[in-house]
Amino acid sequence: MEDQTQRELASPAVQKRVKDSFDRQGLMAHLGARLAHIGPGRVRIVLPARPEVTQQHGYVHAGATSAIADSAGGYATLTLFDEDCEVLTVEYKINLLAPAAGDYLEAIGTVLKPGRTLTVCQLEVYGVREGGERKLVANGQQTLIRVNRPAR
Amino acid sequence: MEDQTQRELASPAVQKRVKDSFDRQGLMAHLGARLAHIGPGRVRIVLPARPEVTQQHGYVHAGATSAIADSAGGYATLTLFDEDCEVLTVEYKINLLAPAAGDYLEAIGTVLKPGRTLTVCQLEVYGVREGGERKLVANGQQTLIRVNRPAR
Amino acid sequence: MEDQTQRELASPAVQKRVKDSFDRQGLMAHLGARLAHIGPGRVRIVLPARPEVTQQHGYVHAGATSAIADSAGGYATLTLFDEDCEVLTVEYKINLLAPAAGDYLEAIGTVLKPGRTLTVCQLEVYGVREGGERKLVANGQQTLIRVNRPAR
Amino acid sequence: MEDQTQRELASPAVQKRVKDSFDRQGLMAHLGARLAHIGPGRVRIVLPARPEVTQQHGYVHAGATSAIADSAGGYATLTLFDEDCEVLTVEYKINLLAPAAGDYLEAIGTVLKPGRTLTVCQLEVYGVREGGERKLVANGQQTLIRVNRPAR
Repeated sequence: MEDQTQRELASPAVQKRVKDSFDRQGLMAHLGARLAHIGPGRVRIVLPARPEVTQQHGYVHAGATSAIADSAGGYATLTLFDEDCEVLTVEYKINLLAPAAGDYLEAIGTVLKPGRTLTVCQLEVYGVREGGERKLVANGQQTLIRVNRPAR
Repeated sequence: MEDQTQRELASPAVQKRVKDSFDRQGLMAHLGARLAHIGPGRVRIVLPARPEVTQQHGYVHAGATSAIADSAGGYATLTLFDEDCEVLTVEYKINLLAPAAGDYLEAIGTVLKPGRTLTVCQLEVYGVREGGERKLVANGQQTLIRVNRPAR
Repeated sequence: MEDQTQRELASPAVQKRVKDSFDRQGLMAHLGARLAHIGPGRVRIVLPARPEVTQQHGYVHAGATSAIADSAGGYATLTLFDEDCEVLTVEYKINLLAPAAGDYLEAIGTVLKPGRTLTVCQLEVYGVREGGERKLVANGQQTLIRVNRPAR
Repeated sequence: MEDQTQRELASPAVQKRVKDSFDRQGLMAHLGARLAHIGPGRVRIVLPARPEVTQQHGYVHAGATSAIADSAGGYATLTLFDEDCEVLTVEYKINLLAPAAGDYLEAIGTVLKPGRTLTVCQLEVYGVREGGERKLVANGQQTLIRVNRPAR
């Protein structure tokens, strides 16, 4: 059963701001990641499994898994604030629960506790096979700080 | 003052095993990372700052920073075990202490507590400028598990 | 709306095993904590707010908050295994989201990913006022290891 | 070889401020913990092993281990700021490396990266036997926030 709240969209202005920022992240383009959904307090990023993102056994590298999880949490947080601020990751912790296998990974960042200064997000990454199998491969928790532009 | 223990080298056989595994990590090559030092229980990986590894403000992305830190800890652990086993990251936590600026990043993984099943590593990442300035930009802690080949 | 799955009980044998172990934890009795619910893969522990568990501002100390969260995750994991094994905490990470205020705290440990060797739990702690207000004050993630008796 | 920097003392005014705050932590007294050293950016707390602080196998409970580690990091941070502010734990992550055995535990909190808003500390806990054996039993990393009085 699809969680309907996961389908809600952020406002066009917020979506544009997130997309513009995402497009400035050289790493996301270099890895081949793309924004899949921008909701209020929740963002999804998809990363196709390619040889360029693997570790030594051919699964997606924990670093690539973490990169899209970190960005998903950062943009989930950014959707909650106005355009005069930026969001920076303070720290995160991630458990790699299973080999990151599948045709693509989907990272979901969800704001758990928004705050004026600090925000905490939950991070989930699923390995997905075309056709439908979907498995949680990583789960994490992230702390972010809001800063006024220009960023630190 | 240079810490002399950081200069000790692992045995040629261990170095070869680490290099071979590193060369199979598609992500490391794709990011432009390279092994800089393989010591017993301590490995350094260097990542030149390039547009391909940046976040939205032009600093190195937390995901790239974490990727080399994670690999450094994994290979530091691998130096301690014989060739019939593999090492997988269970989880890690990393604090981004400062913007990851510099000409290149240097990640250092150091085994803090080796174990038959689980090993814990300290992760440090420095931003380095050619000419010498060197600043700690990230610090973390990682748990790894030893598994018999073939890996899960 | 009450989540009905939170009401499911573990088998009497499992409940007894968890209770016996909990009763051997000197710290839980000393803090005044008690088991509130033992379900399969989910355990709740309650801690009344008393001066003996506070930090300098009169809220419950992060150490007491963490202690019941850690035990809740450990016992949630123990419900999944048979009587010949023990469970030890490998590590955990916890965010203190709000001052731990209320008449009592309720920690909920939930198994997120069980495993033959390692299990990962989600940890939540709520501050609860008699009468009903209920607020998430801490959220964490924990890794545990199963060991054969006798424990290390 | 004793690290001489671990012997440096904070100013009398700072020591007094830390002691006063520590004395207001009901949990520390209830556990039987005491301040052992207050240096600039480094604080040590000692906890005698007693049945009141144990887990089910008779070792010190991870919650008690964490409680003194958390307080040590908090007070290490407080030594760096003036009297108009307070310090709160944002989050921490701790690895339990070995059974917390010994006659007493010693937690050392050390500021790794001070900041105007956020500070990051390293946390270490040793199990110590009278007579001298000393073993690292837990290692962690903590993020703290400075707030103006009165605290949130």
